[in-house]
Amino acid sequence: MITVKGERSYSYSITKTEDVFDIQNDALLSGGDTHSGARRFVIVDKNVYGLYRSRIERYFRDRDVVANIKLVDAGDKHKSETSYISVFSDLCEYDLKRRSEPIIAIGGGVATDLAGFVASTYRRGIPHLKVPTTLMGYIDASVGIKTGVNFGPFKNRMGSFEIPAGVILDKSFLKTLDRRNLINGIGEIAKLAVILDISLFEDLERGGRSLISNKFQDGLGQIVLDKSIVGMVQELSPNLYETELQRKVDFGHTFSLAIEAASGYDIMHGEAVAIDVLFSSYLSLQRNLLSTREFDRIVALYKTLDIPMWSSHITPDLFWDGVRERVMHRDGKQLIPIPSSIGVCDFINDLSWDEVHSAVKALAGEFLDSEAV
Amino acid sequence: MITVKGERSYSYSITKTEDVFDIQNDALLSGGDTHSGARRFVIVDKNVYGLYRSRIERYFRDRDVVANIKLVDAGDKHKSETSYISVFSDLCEYDLKRRSEPIIAIGGGVATDLAGFVASTYRRGIPHLKVPTTLMGYIDASVGIKTGVNFGPFKNRMGSFEIPAGVILDKSFLKTLDRRNLINGIGEIAKLAVILDISLFEDLERGGRSLISNKFQDGLGQIVLDKSIVGMVQELSPNLYETELQRKVDFGHTFSLAIEAASGYDIMHGEAVAIDVLFSSYLSLQRNLLSTREFDRIVALYKTLDIPMWSSHITPDLFWDGVRERVMHRDGKQLIPIPSSIGVCDFINDLSWDEVHSAVKALAGEFLDSEAV
Repeated sequence: MITVKGERSYSYSITKTEDVFDIQNDALLSGGDTHSGARRFVIVDKNVYGLYRSRIERYFRDRDVVANIKLVDAGDKHKSETSYISVFSDLCEYDLKRRSEPIIAIGGGVATDLAGFVASTYRRGIPHLKVPTTLMGYIDASVGIKTGVNFGPFKNRMGSFEIPAGVILDKSFLKTLDRRNLINGIGEIAKLAVILDISLFEDLERGGRSLISNKFQDGLGQIVLDKSIVGMVQELSPNLYETELQRKVDFGHTFSLAIEAASGYDIMHGEAVAIDVLFSSYLSLQRNLLSTREFDRIVALYKTLDIPMWSSHITPDLFWDGVRERVMHRDGKQLIPIPSSIGVCDFINDLSWDEVHSAVKALAGEFLDSEAV
Repeated sequence: MITVKGERSYSYSITKTEDVFDIQNDALLSGGDTHSGARRFVIVDKNVYGLYRSRIERYFRDRDVVANIKLVDAGDKHKSETSYISVFSDLCEYDLKRRSEPIIAIGGGVATDLAGFVASTYRRGIPHLKVPTTLMGYIDASVGIKTGVNFGPFKNRMGSFEIPAGVILDKSFLKTLDRRNLINGIGEIAKLAVILDISLFEDLERGGRSLISNKFQDGLGQIVLDKSIVGMVQELSPNLYETELQRKVDFGHTFSLAIEAASGYDIMHGEAVAIDVLFSSYLSLQRNLLSTREFDRIVALYKTLDIPMWSSHITPDLFWDGVRERVMHRDGKQLIPIPSSIGVCDFINDLSWDEVHSAVKALAGEFLDSEAV
């Protein structure tokens, strides 16, 4: 018998910058060749390109870097194996150098997840730089190392873990977001707040609708962004490759995948996560872990911020099938995170069909009409 | 700025066994659940299945493990993104547990490369076990951590590095190989011998045609297999993820990819590697590094073992384009391994069009008629 073993070190940085398309700003070209004629394959969300086209083109032209720009559609239904093959095919024709010409992904979670998966499987891995332009991308998708696409109804089934060359955060992109995209990101922030961080929860309560109207450009917006990223990184970094399957950040990700898939990806990821957060909190209430007062406080926050609370796609069977799929993902165990109090995580492994059924009946009656997506 | 960093340890074993389908042999079920009703997704080369079907089915039945068997075609033209999507799709329907139900790949390099890529991208990586059944698989494809498929004309362009759950070597499979498949594997062994190991080269000379007629089942066959694997592992293991792009084992892999693609993958990988080995050795001769006596010794070995020496697809342009593609793969440098003597590796970075052109002219005249594939 021969045993091959060793250790591999990894490192990447998440860096804040201002005005990433300013000609003086080097961030976009970091991690690769910058000499005249150097090349980049730039994967850009179509909406972002519509808003920033002239600035993006001028940036690369003025820096004398040849940019091959590939546009991708936003929306989870475009995060598919078909898009993956299409982007991969274009990249083959362009043929970057393996180490010194990173792929640059500019967009929301769809663009960065897709670009990351292309990068991680092209020549068995070439570098990629992530520039999130949505709130969801900013505080969630870009921060970790997960890449992937949906495979038909199977959410994120095809993907990889891939250390990025870097993550570049430019908050000014958030100014361009519409209300739905802001609330989509707030869904993930609410998840972190409820399961990890009571102070972040209080910030959301304090900020209220001004977080949305100010589009996170004010002081409180910055505080909420920073706390979200720091909380996420603290949870992810000791378990980057998910060696440990019991993960607090899986809160809101037990039932949400089933909602997204059932809607044909019309419901956005953060919307589904928000619904899952509320449902999982109700399961905790049913078990007399979370108090009624705390549950009502979560509901009140949702109502203030117009966060989705229910979906017409939800049935007890949908959620139970979702649990069964998650059990496969969690290697045979439920490992369902629920809040025993706001900011405090517990895990349950004995969720029953009856609990799911009665929770769906109770909440559907309450939320189906007015708060559903 | 936040920096995320850490280290990740890895380990896998390459284990020899006898009669892997014997009901008493646990090797095939290693690394996962073995209780009654445990499941496996078994990716099997069609030829192997034709020969071993009843034994494979009986093995899993007698062990009370539910095996979902997926057949794949042999031949590099079937190692495509289309096959990848097809196998992935079947796996989605079957839905293994993420950690305790490894994929088992039984076949040649095509089956193990394809299965490894599916495993590495399903739920961002589930375990897989490799059971090589060809000589190429035994001494090369299964030993390392490279997975992948061809993407149209782009050989191995889509893939990953993925640590397997284990590699199980059962030499008795080699008894089933036809002459062409044996010579295909000998192409990779000749590569190792010429660039790394004069003693292995002498073994090939000493064994001659008996290696092929005995199908590596005798003592010398075992010695050649062992030296090949040990040599390969010694080169691969300190550089498993190809952090260093200057690699001795890339010998024979500068021009060979272009030959394979130009033939529409009719020429087998080891055949193309063998041709590349001879061509690269001639480049060394042209530079007065390798002696005429040593080059002639390589030619004599090729003739004794009927190893392919040329292909009608070869032109100076084909090879020069091949070099340019490899330069992208080697991040802007040629890093071409050539033997300065049998068993001694040198690297060149200044190969010129004229050298390629004159070498093609010289060798095509000599080998095109009688020794070409």
